[in-house]
Amino acid sequence: PEARTLLIGSHLDTVPNGGPYDGALGVLAGLEVLRVLQENQVPLRHHVEVIDFTDEEGRFGDFFGSRAVAGKHTEESIGAFLEKAGEAEDIGDLPAMWALDPDGLSVDAVLAARRDPKSLAGYLELHIEQGPRLERAGASIGVVTGIFGRRSWLLTFLGRSDHAGTTPLDARADALVAAARFIAAAPERVQARFPDAVATCGNVEVLPGVYNVTPRQATVWVEFRAGTLAELDGIDQALRELADEITVGPDLHAVVKPTAASQPTPMHPRMQEVIRAAAQALGYPSMDLPSGAGHDAQMMANVTPTGMIFTPSHRGRSHCPDEYTAPEHLVAGANVLLHAVLALAGPP
Amino acid sequence: PEARTLLIGSHLDTVPNGGPYDGALGVLAGLEVLRVLQENQVPLRHHVEVIDFTDEEGRFGDFFGSRAVAGKHTEESIGAFLEKAGEAEDIGDLPAMWALDPDGLSVDAVLAARRDPKSLAGYLELHIEQGPRLERAGASIGVVTGIFGRRSWLLTFLGRSDHAGTTPLDARADALVAAARFIAAAPERVQARFPDAVATCGNVEVLPGVYNVTPRQATVWVEFRAGTLAELDGIDQALRELADEITVGPDLHAVVKPTAASQPTPMHPRMQEVIRAAAQALGYPSMDLPSGAGHDAQMMANVTPTGMIFTPSHRGRSHCPDEYTAPEHLVAGANVLLHAVLALAGPP
Repeated sequence: PEARTLLIGSHLDTVPNGGPYDGALGVLAGLEVLRVLQENQVPLRHHVEVIDFTDEEGRFGDFFGSRAVAGKHTEESIGAFLEKAGEAEDIGDLPAMWALDPDGLSVDAVLAARRDPKSLAGYLELHIEQGPRLERAGASIGVVTGIFGRRSWLLTFLGRSDHAGTTPLDARADALVAAARFIAAAPERVQARFPDAVATCGNVEVLPGVYNVTPRQATVWVEFRAGTLAELDGIDQALRELADEITVGPDLHAVVKPTAASQPTPMHPRMQEVIRAAAQALGYPSMDLPSGAGHDAQMMANVTPTGMIFTPSHRGRSHCPDEYTAPEHLVAGANVLLHAVLALAGPP
Repeated sequence: PEARTLLIGSHLDTVPNGGPYDGALGVLAGLEVLRVLQENQVPLRHHVEVIDFTDEEGRFGDFFGSRAVAGKHTEESIGAFLEKAGEAEDIGDLPAMWALDPDGLSVDAVLAARRDPKSLAGYLELHIEQGPRLERAGASIGVVTGIFGRRSWLLTFLGRSDHAGTTPLDARADALVAAARFIAAAPERVQARFPDAVATCGNVEVLPGVYNVTPRQATVWVEFRAGTLAELDGIDQALRELADEITVGPDLHAVVKPTAASQPTPMHPRMQEVIRAAAQALGYPSMDLPSGAGHDAQMMANVTPTGMIFTPSHRGRSHCPDEYTAPEHLVAGANVLLHAVLALAGPP
């Protein structure tokens, strides 16, 4: 009656034109762990259960499955998912759960998927890094310290349109030149002050956007990610200062419109320690690192002690066909997962 | 039988939401010149004729009227104009000529508008500068030395998409950062080496253009203008070198696709001298300058000695409601036009 459940897993879905490792590794390695436990008749003090979370990538609703298990859905968030999934035209676009049992995926069923936190002993997820840091460091195992928080903005530079043929540079208030100075400087400015964080400008939209008129407006899509709230606040301020430095003079202005924000999610200290100790005991070189990408683990961390194990991604490539992790690293990751499970749920 | 015709004029159309001076000044001042000549019964050795060119701004076809008079139309260019004008939904969108006589605007009628170059004694156009140079110099009159040639490109930077959360800066090949470096540097690079020329980046289009993926492609709309072919060639080379400097490393490339080119059009030396002498005789401070904008004069220069007189634009503003030229400058421009006409067609 005192036994709780240690969940291990990840997700089987990936992005269109993605690779074979993102998500699938954690589910398949979890199955292998169960087989090893059973074949060796290992006595357990907690249940161990493998879980495959639906639609981690957000084809219809991000972290849909883990959000359900963590009890973080609302009727609205489920309804939005069902509506989007209902419009899918190809069965290949549908999450496996929907394809297997379209009638079973209802608001009530998703709400009922919530697990009582008191019934859980923790959540462990093995995943590829999707970045180059482990490979560069020569490490087989990454001990994930936390998952980055993220903020995104629409940053609009406002200037003035002038005739491109008749207006000398010093008489212009070119919003795109201002935006370009920001885009060129922002990533390095952030990395210089916050070496563990990243900033990216993913798009820019220009008005009027023609050859012969200087741009009066340029809107930059900015996002930045970091492992702590203090870093996120510091980057927020540094990027606003950069925009102010660029928009000198009476005719150039910058307006920040925040569009999304998520908090950093630290991994549980005991889970980090169990993973670190398992790697050390097995002789795999390991390093601590944060995750720049989002994972189901950030949902599960809301309700139960959660840890993540990373394996190296060759050249950091992911979400593309050349996503690759060498077999010896896959084995190392699965072994660390097994030994972490033994430490958390195995013989006392 | 030896009398030829000196044409004076400009255009009455302007851009949507434009100002009252662009084009109209040259036509109205031309009418006033005719009135003065008639009231004073000035004997002339050439005919003097005021001309209002249709659709200079290119609502349906750029330099449509002056292209017709210069004999530079083809059946295709006229057909394209008639088709576009036929789709106009509001009479306010139509050139005056079409609104007055829709049946008269045919391919044959436009071809017949050509004037035999042997019948012409020259073309003079008074126009606002549409830039700030005369006002800055304290000059009332600009002697236009020529009309800028222009080249435009689609300049595509090719990089690689990576995960914006997991990929450190030094592992990225961000096409938008490369494009931004180009946009931020190009105008100043051009002005430093070619002080009389201008370069502008009017737009940039980004793929995939989302928050959480580094851009794999960014296409910049580049244009540059200069008064001589040597400058245009020099800028062409300088901007290609700048793109090459930015795309270091194996994963970034730049591809130039030229989209349009027009040659510089010098104004006729005798016309420049006549205008310069008229300003001096009348006591108006004048300066020589090129035109960064296109004008009907560049069509007429193909077939007859052509000159242009500029008047100052307050703060360089044009193609907007606050386009303004002070009355004393308008009078100065009209007086210089009158005295240039007297020099070219007046009493021997």
